[in-house]
Amino acid sequence: MKYCFGIDVGGTTVKCGLFRTDGTLEEKWEIPTRTENHGEAILPDIAASILEKMKERGITREMTAGVGVDVPGPVNENGEVPCAVNLHWGYKHIAREMEALTGLKAKAANDANAAALGESWRGGAAGIPNVLMATLGTGVGGGIIVDGRIVCGAHGSGGEIGHANVEPEETEYCNCGNQGCLEQMTSATGIVRLAKKELKSSDDSSVLRQSQVTAKAVFDAYKQGDELAGRVVKKFASYLGRGLAIFACVTDPEVILIGGGVSKAGEPLIEAVQQEYRKAAFPTCKDTPIKLAVLGNDAGIYGAAKLVLQG
Amino acid sequence: MKYCFGIDVGGTTVKCGLFRTDGTLEEKWEIPTRTENHGEAILPDIAASILEKMKERGITREMTAGVGVDVPGPVNENGEVPCAVNLHWGYKHIAREMEALTGLKAKAANDANAAALGESWRGGAAGIPNVLMATLGTGVGGGIIVDGRIVCGAHGSGGEIGHANVEPEETEYCNCGNQGCLEQMTSATGIVRLAKKELKSSDDSSVLRQSQVTAKAVFDAYKQGDELAGRVVKKFASYLGRGLAIFACVTDPEVILIGGGVSKAGEPLIEAVQQEYRKAAFPTCKDTPIKLAVLGNDAGIYGAAKLVLQG
Repeated sequence: MKYCFGIDVGGTTVKCGLFRTDGTLEEKWEIPTRTENHGEAILPDIAASILEKMKERGITREMTAGVGVDVPGPVNENGEVPCAVNLHWGYKHIAREMEALTGLKAKAANDANAAALGESWRGGAAGIPNVLMATLGTGVGGGIIVDGRIVCGAHGSGGEIGHANVEPEETEYCNCGNQGCLEQMTSATGIVRLAKKELKSSDDSSVLRQSQVTAKAVFDAYKQGDELAGRVVKKFASYLGRGLAIFACVTDPEVILIGGGVSKAGEPLIEAVQQEYRKAAFPTCKDTPIKLAVLGNDAGIYGAAKLVLQG
Repeated sequence: MKYCFGIDVGGTTVKCGLFRTDGTLEEKWEIPTRTENHGEAILPDIAASILEKMKERGITREMTAGVGVDVPGPVNENGEVPCAVNLHWGYKHIAREMEALTGLKAKAANDANAAALGESWRGGAAGIPNVLMATLGTGVGGGIIVDGRIVCGAHGSGGEIGHANVEPEETEYCNCGNQGCLEQMTSATGIVRLAKKELKSSDDSSVLRQSQVTAKAVFDAYKQGDELAGRVVKKFASYLGRGLAIFACVTDPEVILIGGGVSKAGEPLIEAVQQEYRKAAFPTCKDTPIKLAVLGNDAGIYGAAKLVLQG
């Protein structure tokens, strides 16, 4: 048992990783995600790529602990998903299908959950068994690690913190159909939404008036001292910080990680969030460190690989 | 191994339970909690009572799986507590002290956490491994059970949902020093606070104007159709329902239990909370059942006893 595979399935690309069981990433590569015909080729394509890689490297099944797969969808503990919209999937028993296709032990998880597990294995929270991770991208995902394992929950919705209702007064709708979700305030698109509101509500000058408003532009302007951008970041940080403080009352993580494209804004983002987090956090949790995730787009393959090592 | 002890330490009384390891409560009794001299007699008193009970019944150490103790304070996984104000304790390694005092294997947990574990063992969520329980009493406690085990968290503050910030606009202070905690809205005292505000803010007639305002009086009036009491219950339910919906985004429990003195209001309370919960819950979690806890004051001894059976 020297190797395992970690596979991160996205809507356009599948990221594949060959790992040593000690967590060393030996090689990574990508294959396209073929979503046509209800995405029926996705798992067979992955299996073929894995078997080819094993052949190429002379890796036998006996040398392989297994393959972990993460997908954008609510995966339960058994590795089943009721549906995964971006992959055009309905119900699928991912783990069982992958086992049949490869002859290897297989596990599956939600992608944001896998990212959190990856970060707690070899990333920003390496070796820490109790972690909460928020992934701020186009949407907001999350992962809860307790005792070193993903909390999947009863419906595979463990860690769906992007849909925590943090604004009961919100009138616009989230993609999930609710109103006031954290995702509407703190995703890349959510930040743009907050910024546009702020731009509309005043005539204050701002560099944000001179170009396309993106989450990156907001944080860049903030770092340059733009006051209007500062108000947007403050609002973003207040929603996220207070949300994280609430979540910390549930599982009391040892460390909170922030990842995803938005987190490229770096330490100024962390500082703004930490400040708001402290205001709302339960006294014993006020000093819980909030840190940047470090594995970037590789977090998923690390977490997926770790899955099969957990038995 | 036929027996185990579950001990629930309160500020005035220690509840003791002798259980069979299958979860049958054989006998329960109480001893006073002697808090003088920094509560130094509390654990020795418990140990003496356990050893006496074993002698009385002819139970040997070999027949005993151990003793679980729960206390009002943040207990970590090792069974240590940094302080427990109501017991006049500073730091104490509860598990180790109990083992030394009794010669039995010992475990310790927070009282609200133990209550949740008890309910998931033999109570309102019997046999269900993923549970969230809110205990609405003088304060608001909580317990998170994942894979059949208590989530203690990094600071023993797992399940401290009473201090989730559900009202950022709140100006009054919670006992914890923060503002806007769930406990300020949904504990027995919190409900009285909401009711007094409501009574002050209008001249509407209400039976609540004719007697002392208590949480029970509010729910009794609500059941009789009192409109002002209805507004108070709606506010209470909206804070609690939305809070539970947020917590459900974290661990996605299979069932949510409500216990504590306030829950004696029964099904009308559950219905009001469920309605508000559904509005804010993530789509896959909208049908998560919200149910009354059933073990009442015995939940703690059940959960404490279960602790020692978990290894």
